[in-house]
Order: sequence, then C-alpha cells, then structure tokens
Amino acid sequence: MPIEAVLSRLPPIRGVDREWIAKAEARQVSLTKPPGSLGRLEEIANRVAAIQETLTPTVEAAQIIVFAGDHGVTAEGVAPYPSAVTAQMVANFLAGGAAVNVLAAVAAAGVTVVDIGVASDHPPAAGVRGRRVARGTRNMVREPAMTPEEALAAIMVGVEQGLDAASRVQMIGLGEMGIGNSTAAGAITAALTGLPAASVTGRGAGADDAMVRRKIEAIERALREHRPDPDDGLDVLAKVGGLEIAGLVGVVLAGAVTRRVVVTDGFIATAAAAIAVRVCPAAADYLFAAHRSIEPGHAALLDVIGQEPLLDLRMRLGEGTGAALAFGIIRSAVAAFTRMATFAAAGVSDKSA
Amino acid sequence: MPIEAVLSRLPPIRGVDREWIAKAEARQVSLTKPPGSLGRLEEIANRVAAIQETLTPTVEAAQIIVFAGDHGVTAEGVAPYPSAVTAQMVANFLAGGAAVNVLAAVAAAGVTVVDIGVASDHPPAAGVRGRRVARGTRNMVREPAMTPEEALAAIMVGVEQGLDAASRVQMIGLGEMGIGNSTAAGAITAALTGLPAASVTGRGAGADDAMVRRKIEAIERALREHRPDPDDGLDVLAKVGGLEIAGLVGVVLAGAVTRRVVVTDGFIATAAAAIAVRVCPAAADYLFAAHRSIEPGHAALLDVIGQEPLLDLRMRLGEGTGAALAFGIIRSAVAAFTRMATFAAAGVSDKSA
Repeated sequence: MPIEAVLSRLPPIRGVDREWIAKAEARQVSLTKPPGSLGRLEEIANRVAAIQETLTPTVEAAQIIVFAGDHGVTAEGVAPYPSAVTAQMVANFLAGGAAVNVLAAVAAAGVTVVDIGVASDHPPAAGVRGRRVARGTRNMVREPAMTPEEALAAIMVGVEQGLDAASRVQMIGLGEMGIGNSTAAGAITAALTGLPAASVTGRGAGADDAMVRRKIEAIERALREHRPDPDDGLDVLAKVGGLEIAGLVGVVLAGAVTRRVVVTDGFIATAAAAIAVRVCPAAADYLFAAHRSIEPGHAALLDVIGQEPLLDLRMRLGEGTGAALAFGIIRSAVAAFTRMATFAAAGVSDKSA
Repeated sequence: MPIEAVLSRLPPIRGVDREWIAKAEARQVSLTKPPGSLGRLEEIANRVAAIQETLTPTVEAAQIIVFAGDHGVTAEGVAPYPSAVTAQMVANFLAGGAAVNVLAAVAAAGVTVVDIGVASDHPPAAGVRGRRVARGTRNMVREPAMTPEEALAAIMVGVEQGLDAASRVQMIGLGEMGIGNSTAAGAITAALTGLPAASVTGRGAGADDAMVRRKIEAIERALREHRPDPDDGLDVLAKVGGLEIAGLVGVVLAGAVTRRVVVTDGFIATAAAAIAVRVCPAAADYLFAAHRSIEPGHAALLDVIGQEPLLDLRMRLGEGTGAALAFGIIRSAVAAFTRMATFAAAGVSDKSA
C-alpha cells in the first residue's frame, strides 16, 4: 500500500476525543438560549472544540488553497470549455477577479493558488505557487490518469501546502480549478461507491446532453479498463483522479495531522476528501462539508465522508466558493459558543415556569 | 380597513421592476463563471440589484431590530420559561451576551433593542428603546390579544424603527423576544392559512408534550372565539398576534417603502412578514427568508411570503439569529455580482471547446 509512504512521513492522525464533545455540550446548555436551539451551530462548535481540545476554540484565520490541474480526458469531449481556460483562470485567481477571490475576501480568508498540473502556459504572475507534477493528467480512457508515483508526488505537494497553511490559520478550505475535473470526480465517485457512472455524472460546468453521455461513457470505459480497487484510495486516485484532486487529498491529511478545521467545497473537492477518508478514516473528524452541490454524485461522496452539508444554494462552481461561504457559518457557531453569556452570569432564569 | 391608516401615512410600496432583474441576469452571464453556477447567490444578487435599481448594489451596512414583548397567553401554561425571562433577555441583549449579539457582531451588523411591550420591569439599561404600547398582550384565549388601535400603534412603532434603520443601513434583520410568542405565531399561521392548529404548532423554546397540547388548545380556542378574518392581516394580528410581531410588521412595511433588503428570521419573525405581505403583497419583493426553522408551521408561512429559506441549520432560537447568519450569504452574493471580473476583462474564454 504505497499511500503508507505518505502517511509514514506524517505524525499519526487520530480522531477527535468524544470527551471533548461532551465537555462542549455541557457548556452549550449553560448559555443563554433554550438547549439545542442553535441547532447545527451547536454541533459545529462542539466538534471544533474537540478538534482544538479547548472550550475557547478560535477559527478567525482561514485560508483557501486552490490547486489547478488539467485533465487528459478532455480529449473525449467531456467539457464545455477548452483546457486553456484552466490557465486563464489561474491568471484570473491571481488578479483577484474570480468568484473565490471575492467570496474569500468577504470571509476575510486568504487564497493560495498552486499550479500542480496545468497543461498550458499561463502568463507568469506574482503569487502562483509553481508545483507542477505533470502538465495535466493522461486520458484515463486510454491509460491511467497518473502513475502511482505521480499521484503520491501530488499528494505530497498538497501535504506541503496544507502544513504551510496550518502554520498560519485554524481553518482551511479546499479549492480547485481544472477543466474536465467533474469527469474525474465522477469516476472517483463511481469507483469508491460502486454506483453506476450514469447516476453520479452531471453537467459539471455546463455540459449538454451529448457531452454528459460522453462523460458517462468515458467513466465507464476508464473503470472497465483499469479496475481501480475501491478499498485502495491511492489506486482510485491515480487511475481516474487528477493532480489537483491529489493535492487536496494531501491538504486534508495535513489538516487532520495538525488538527485544523478542513472545509470541503463542491463535487471535486469532496471527491478528494472521500479519497482521504478512504486512506485514513480518522481524517473525517476534521472535515466540514460546506455545501450540497447540484452535481448528482455529490450526495454519495458526502456519505463516504459522513458529513451533512452546511449550505444548499444550488451552487456548482467549485474553486473553493462553497468553502468561503461556509467559513462564516463555522465562525458564527464558534463565536456563539465562546462569547455568549451563561444563564448564571446574565441573571437569566433557565428554569421552567 | 384600518391598516389603510398606516399605509396612507407612507409613500406607496411597489414591487421590484422585472427589467432590473433582466439587466442583472445579463451582467451575471458576463462574469467569469459558468452561467448559473453560483446558484441561488445569483438570484439573491439579481433581486438586490432590482430592489436598489442599480448594477452596483451594496449591502454592507446591516441592522437587526429586536422587539421585545410579552404574551398574556402564557397564563395557559404554553411556555417553558416564565414571562420574566423576556425582561431578563432584554438586559442580556443590552449587555451583549445573547446569541443575536454575538452573531450580529460576526456579521458586522448592529442590534437595536426595542421594548414594545414587556410586561415586567427590566433593570434600566443604556440603549433600550422604550416604546411600550402595553405591558404585554391580553390572553388571547379569553379576549383579543390587542385592540386594533394597539396593534396599529405597535405597527407604527415598527415603522418608526424601520425608517430609522433604513436611514443608516441597506439591510434590516427582523428580531424578536417574547416568552409565549410561538403560540401567537402558531395562531397567526393557522388563521392566515386555514391549517389546523395541531399541524402548525411546535415546541417553541422547548415545550414538552403536555405544553404543546395546551398550545394547540389555546390556539384553537382563540381562533374559535375571535374568528379573525384571514384576508384582514390587521384583524389576525390584533386578535391573536403580539406587540413585538406588530412591530416587525411595521419594519417590513418601512423596509419596502425605503427599498431596503429585509431579512426574516424564524417562525415568529416570518409570522410578522406574512401579516405584512397579507396587507401589502408587494412587500414580498423586499423579503429574504433567512432560514428554515424546525417549527412545523414555518413552511406554511414561507409559502405565504413566497420565499425559499437561505439556510437550514435546525435552528429555533429567534432573536434575529437566523437573519444575522443570512447577512453573510446575501453580502457574498452581492459581492460576487459587483466585484467579479468579466470574461472580457479577464481574458478568459467563455466559448465552448
């Protein structure tokens, strides 16, 4: 199991301690609100307290890491935009004009852009982190998208970026850009869950009906050809995944190692989170699912990571946009937990009439 | 129709112009994202643009107005906390220790606290706006909760507060505090929609089964006794509503008059919004539903105001906590709309491969 090569280089990942959840729950009932009335905000805060092992957790500083990579499978006509758009969007991220830039700014979060596998050249721009493992993946229909070595190298880029972010922030969002990557995420979903390709394949950035049929066919052919082992996350990732997805797997592992809040995004980021959970189940305790994408395969991936999404706004953009929105919810949950008055301190009766 | 007495004092309320929605939609497709990929964020921004009649709308400044009032129906044993908690929570709001204070602070929103009808005395505290119309409502089971004159006076307090907020902010959140007010909101819901009391009555702040049965019975008796006219929002409000609910009706009307974004909260605030829409249907165009409460009657009220909630986090606290959370979503939607790069400006291809 070559993923052990990654995990063995990291401190052990352990899940959160249930005793901290219980301590947090005890604090929740002391706060000036009917017990449970903040709903999921209470669950969020309790888990953040358990992650940080403190009753005064903080999630003020947040960073979105956007990995950009291209996909050989675009040769099959599965995407409504040319691969060149990946590089163009990298330039847009660096200029601050993309949706993730704007939503991250509203959320007072930083954005890191990592070229982990863009195929075409983008104008040299200040701020991009050049970490190309390859110039895009290979066409999964014809050969495995990556070699195991490439997938591991891309995971290690993600670990490096995740550890770097973790040294500065408490909350890390998963972002990605890669024309064709909803086909890779669909293939990962079908491989991990055993669901038929047709039931987990959607329109991605806007595929028409013919394109969706080609996506389904590409996924079916790739899975038939390479037979990835669903119990071996690295095998699935290498054969039908993507470089940017591998980078995000590394971020999730690094976030779990350093006990950071890791916030998924849409379909592609959740595919990465699902791979990470498959190779290291305890990592799930650090994951928060930002939102429910309208991609049909997303629900199955949320089941794999065992998380219920915080938002459901019919988004399907990726980039980390959902993570940026979710930061505000998580911050609010933690703020209520740490800053509300207790019944005793406020002189409010918590007794029944 | 005495509500005309209120409406005649205000400039006319007109709905938003569909042409502005179309102009906003045209801008959305020029932005560097697949068309429609920001989902409901796009709809939100388009409507805010239409409300403000500009393609550069702003919702930076926001205020939550919390009305506090007591309910005579608590004599029926419908609430798990004594009425005194209303006054205690007013003090907590002013000290900054309540959930709405904390969540509003995270959202960089102000909180105004208006005593529109608290029954018991609260310690004099800097910042409370004393506008008592009565010391709580009467017990709706025995007599109408308010006279029409009291209900109108409370609406006018809300109009005054709404206009005051509108002079300073672009976005107004509806907040409330009043032990017993989920019984009033349940009665309003049953009256406006014709649904049976049992199907719209929930646990409020934490009623047990026996208490829920008493809530249902109180609502049934009040409706049978006073027969409020479902087509006359003021009649419903006066007979089975509450002073803080009436205040919120006034805020909605003032927000619509001044073309502000008005954000509902949970069950009680949405009951007020439903009354406002019943007396002035065009006001619905200014309303955004913050979240889906777990109160069983909430969905019916959302239907009355014609809004789909932005969040679904199993909250049931009120105070304006849901509105505070929704501010961040609405701000993000508007920021993406106004600050993202266009395809042309960013040099990103918007053509299919």
